[in-house]
Amino acid sequence: MRKIAIIGIGQTKVHEHWNLSIRELAGKAIFAAQKDAGRKNFDALFVGNMLSGLIDQQNNLGAVIADWVGFKGEAVKIETACSSGASAFRAGMMAVASGEIDSAMVVGVEKMTDAAPNDITSALATAADSDWELEQGVSFVGLNALIMRRYMHEYGWQHEDFAPFSLNSHANAAHNPHARLPFAISEKQYKNSAMIAAPINLMDASPTGDGAASALIVPLESVHNNKRAVEIVGSGAATDTLSVHSRKMPLFLQAAYLSAKYAYAQAGNAPEDIDFFELHDAFSIMAALSLEACGFAEKGQGPRLGLSGAIKLKHGGIPICTRGGLKARGHPVGATGMYQIIESVQQLRGECGEAQVQGAKIGMAQNIGGSGASIITHILKIS
Amino acid sequence: MRKIAIIGIGQTKVHEHWNLSIRELAGKAIFAAQKDAGRKNFDALFVGNMLSGLIDQQNNLGAVIADWVGFKGEAVKIETACSSGASAFRAGMMAVASGEIDSAMVVGVEKMTDAAPNDITSALATAADSDWELEQGVSFVGLNALIMRRYMHEYGWQHEDFAPFSLNSHANAAHNPHARLPFAISEKQYKNSAMIAAPINLMDASPTGDGAASALIVPLESVHNNKRAVEIVGSGAATDTLSVHSRKMPLFLQAAYLSAKYAYAQAGNAPEDIDFFELHDAFSIMAALSLEACGFAEKGQGPRLGLSGAIKLKHGGIPICTRGGLKARGHPVGATGMYQIIESVQQLRGECGEAQVQGAKIGMAQNIGGSGASIITHILKIS
Repeated sequence: MRKIAIIGIGQTKVHEHWNLSIRELAGKAIFAAQKDAGRKNFDALFVGNMLSGLIDQQNNLGAVIADWVGFKGEAVKIETACSSGASAFRAGMMAVASGEIDSAMVVGVEKMTDAAPNDITSALATAADSDWELEQGVSFVGLNALIMRRYMHEYGWQHEDFAPFSLNSHANAAHNPHARLPFAISEKQYKNSAMIAAPINLMDASPTGDGAASALIVPLESVHNNKRAVEIVGSGAATDTLSVHSRKMPLFLQAAYLSAKYAYAQAGNAPEDIDFFELHDAFSIMAALSLEACGFAEKGQGPRLGLSGAIKLKHGGIPICTRGGLKARGHPVGATGMYQIIESVQQLRGECGEAQVQGAKIGMAQNIGGSGASIITHILKIS
Repeated sequence: MRKIAIIGIGQTKVHEHWNLSIRELAGKAIFAAQKDAGRKNFDALFVGNMLSGLIDQQNNLGAVIADWVGFKGEAVKIETACSSGASAFRAGMMAVASGEIDSAMVVGVEKMTDAAPNDITSALATAADSDWELEQGVSFVGLNALIMRRYMHEYGWQHEDFAPFSLNSHANAAHNPHARLPFAISEKQYKNSAMIAAPINLMDASPTGDGAASALIVPLESVHNNKRAVEIVGSGAATDTLSVHSRKMPLFLQAAYLSAKYAYAQAGNAPEDIDFFELHDAFSIMAALSLEACGFAEKGQGPRLGLSGAIKLKHGGIPICTRGGLKARGHPVGATGMYQIIESVQQLRGECGEAQVQGAKIGMAQNIGGSGASIITHILKIS
């Protein structure tokens, strides 16, 4: 298997892009990645997207975006709900690693804000089990609320113990011009924000948005003189039961554990080697569970990393969501996994200004689809 | 790049499966492929599907099916409209070829018949260009009718000149127990059938259906003592503009030409080496265009191969749609590409009884998404 590197990245701001169609959004990110890479050509296009059929009445999105950017080669859409971005990245990586192609453009894209909120809630619910969860009328935030409630009960945490996750993401987003909510929030704002599905309040929940993020990947052997190239040293993917009630341990992200285990093994790394972790804080409970499953905290003890400050940029612990995470950079669902990848590249290249993790050499990104049903973990490294 | 082989196949009948959910359908094909292969384990699951979000309110279909078949590893859905099946197969092939995994289960699955016909027409229209074609109210069959009308005008063909495509598919389906319409039709039935979108009548159009088809793929090096193993010797994919009106040559399938060119080059084959061709006769005009783009007929002369009988099983020409094609085996859209693959395996193994192409050693399968926007070609060979 050939080693793989990222040589160019691009993104749009996560925003309400009323004036851009989904193909235009994707095009902006792709053109930016081409510019960043200093080359235009690629052999295949991999699109991560969840909702184009339901929200945009557009399937065949690979061909749509290929058409828009003037490309006639292979183009596919990969869908694994909210982890579609990372799944597309992994598919592109394997295609290049196989030798079948020599370069892959990967783009994650989602356009959500011009659909009615009720339609978005219904569309997002398709990430849960249609026959066994949706049938009960439970929304996606409702499922996460059930998990958080049980977690608080089981391990004795209070709601405010989750505040550091939200505050940290917002504080970091203030330095990210592409973030949907680029401002810090106070603990008081966290406590007083509106309840969505108890115990999840507005500050526990990530906002939707329109956005696209893209990366150009090539064999590592072709770029050894490029000091900005970032190597993919580990990649793992796993699934769990779709419905939360079917899991023996509903408070443990088994697929996060497995996918991280595969990625660590491939990279020859352990949690202590990771300089920062772009995790999937769709809800603050997911930040805690992700840290636990990946070996940064004991079961039930994820919130301690928030309360101790270990998740912050300059603490020397394990900085997370360094560009704002899902909570404040925003969560354009099928695009999120690619935002995590390109933000990791920005950190490794040292391009994050006031949000820079000093001396970062190894970063990890983890993308979650459904309530933990599909999880993909990547480890990236710069020489 | 490692060479790849298929060691097990499975399928359901294409039918109205009122009593089976989409996960159960997929499971039946996967369990059958495991039984056929004589092994149960695989490293990753690749699902080809177009409409689960729109019709079944179920995204994250990779994880859904993995869950159902008791698998906790990597699982993704690949979507390229009606070519999703072949795209999933190609993704699985590249994943195994890369060395990242050692075995891939690929399943194409679609469940269409328990949605209202109008909903299906709308859902299928998402394979066309939402902003530029759907906006005009043109359905998918309408787009194909425009292409067929222009083709007849340009090259001087009459409607009845397309009859052999439909008659051939139905005659072959009579020997396929998994076909949706397993019976022969007469030329009179073809001529007298109801008009759908002139000049496309009911016998020019493939039926939808519920179905799933699956294959287990592994590195060739691991199976050299297995005489039933079928090698994938060529694979190619390409795209074209999504909207038909944007094409310089709307009567030529450029993506079919390119993907076949890549597959021929990889396999070291030419059209004259191909013993049979499972092509994408969603509409009879597409059979003609596919034959032309892949080098079996000159531009505008595809119907001659039908009229001369060259497409029939025992003529010595280029047999097509040997198990019934889309027209009579049925077209459960995201599953179709996988039916083409496993039917090719059946021919190469000599398991087709009265529909057997005698001495077949090399077969080709071509799957089309949209009105020619996404096309994938595979060449399969048995030793």
